[in-house]
Amino acid sequence: MTTYPITPRTKVKRGQQRASYDVELVHNILDEAYICHVGAKMADRPMVQPTVHWRVEDKLYIHGSSKNGLFQTLLAGEEACITVTILDGLVMARSSFHHSANYRCVMIFAKATKIEEESEKLRLLDLMMEKITPDRLKDVRGPNPQELKATTVLAFDLKEVSAKVRTGPPVDDDEDYALPVWAGVIPVDQKLGKPVDDPRWVEDHGRKD
Amino acid sequence: MTTYPITPRTKVKRGQQRASYDVELVHNILDEAYICHVGAKMADRPMVQPTVHWRVEDKLYIHGSSKNGLFQTLLAGEEACITVTILDGLVMARSSFHHSANYRCVMIFAKATKIEEESEKLRLLDLMMEKITPDRLKDVRGPNPQELKATTVLAFDLKEVSAKVRTGPPVDDDEDYALPVWAGVIPVDQKLGKPVDDPRWVEDHGRKD
Repeated sequence: MTTYPITPRTKVKRGQQRASYDVELVHNILDEAYICHVGAKMADRPMVQPTVHWRVEDKLYIHGSSKNGLFQTLLAGEEACITVTILDGLVMARSSFHHSANYRCVMIFAKATKIEEESEKLRLLDLMMEKITPDRLKDVRGPNPQELKATTVLAFDLKEVSAKVRTGPPVDDDEDYALPVWAGVIPVDQKLGKPVDDPRWVEDHGRKD
Repeated sequence: MTTYPITPRTKVKRGQQRASYDVELVHNILDEAYICHVGAKMADRPMVQPTVHWRVEDKLYIHGSSKNGLFQTLLAGEEACITVTILDGLVMARSSFHHSANYRCVMIFAKATKIEEESEKLRLLDLMMEKITPDRLKDVRGPNPQELKATTVLAFDLKEVSAKVRTGPPVDDDEDYALPVWAGVIPVDQKLGKPVDDPRWVEDHGRKD
């Protein structure tokens, strides 16, 4: 499969020229972003919660406390909309109306399945660690049975999926190109900074460098 | 008012030590972030859409096409949950279980009000431009009547609001501090890069520098 099927619900209605159903593109966006926003209808309100996500093959995973209200709602059968957004740039046009943003966004509709099997939960949590901080797993203490029990891992099938992407310079009205105002894109970059030692690490081991 | 009232719906239930209802903190998070995620129950699915937001006094605003399906749902009276998340760091603990993220998040429950008055809409859209790209407004062409008409501006009262914030180093189990693995925080920074000229600007004016 190289593209997700377009369903009545995943068909992008506004800005169709920006829509994509390409599996590789979707995977790349999901793999690059650290957090997603998970939405569902709860009993007394709509809910949108940020959380770390990770992908393994054609499933998206999130984890959290088994006491999380949204998780309980999802496990009771409410469908989720999970949205992952990477902001890439501020698009500066010659008219205020045509200002825009460059971004890559994935939207998923799916119901949650709870990972029950302990060894599978362990395997998946290890893969999350590998995504967030590669090559660290071998050095840290792994989860004990109580920690594993307190952690719920939810799986979502990547079946009803769409992406929306804007790239490139502003698109202005023909007559506005004559205006003397600068136009272009201001890139927005998310970068990892220099690690900050835990003060208790410094107490015990001195500064890292 | 210096804090938002805690309602049954805004009371943070999990991780209460990270909850805040401080108005200034909430405003700062909303003002720093470019995008929010707006969630609501649509007829055939839950929906979470990213969009640019801006704040003026104690209201949050978003804008978009009047044909946007989510906007139509909100204007039909569905309540929104609007979540703004800034990821500040990856928290590296000595056990995999205590790995975490430093973040600042605001969650708002509110119904949308459409800004009908044209001059007020103009004023608000100008304030959005001022937030995203200060001091540019004077140079660009402002919206014409058709553009204004095609743009819907929605207002949300900041009344049912909570923030959740994690800062600082990992918190490990006592016995794990003896482990030899490095622990600390890897900062995540969002930065604006060097502006990229619109190729049509370069054609007409040469490179900016």
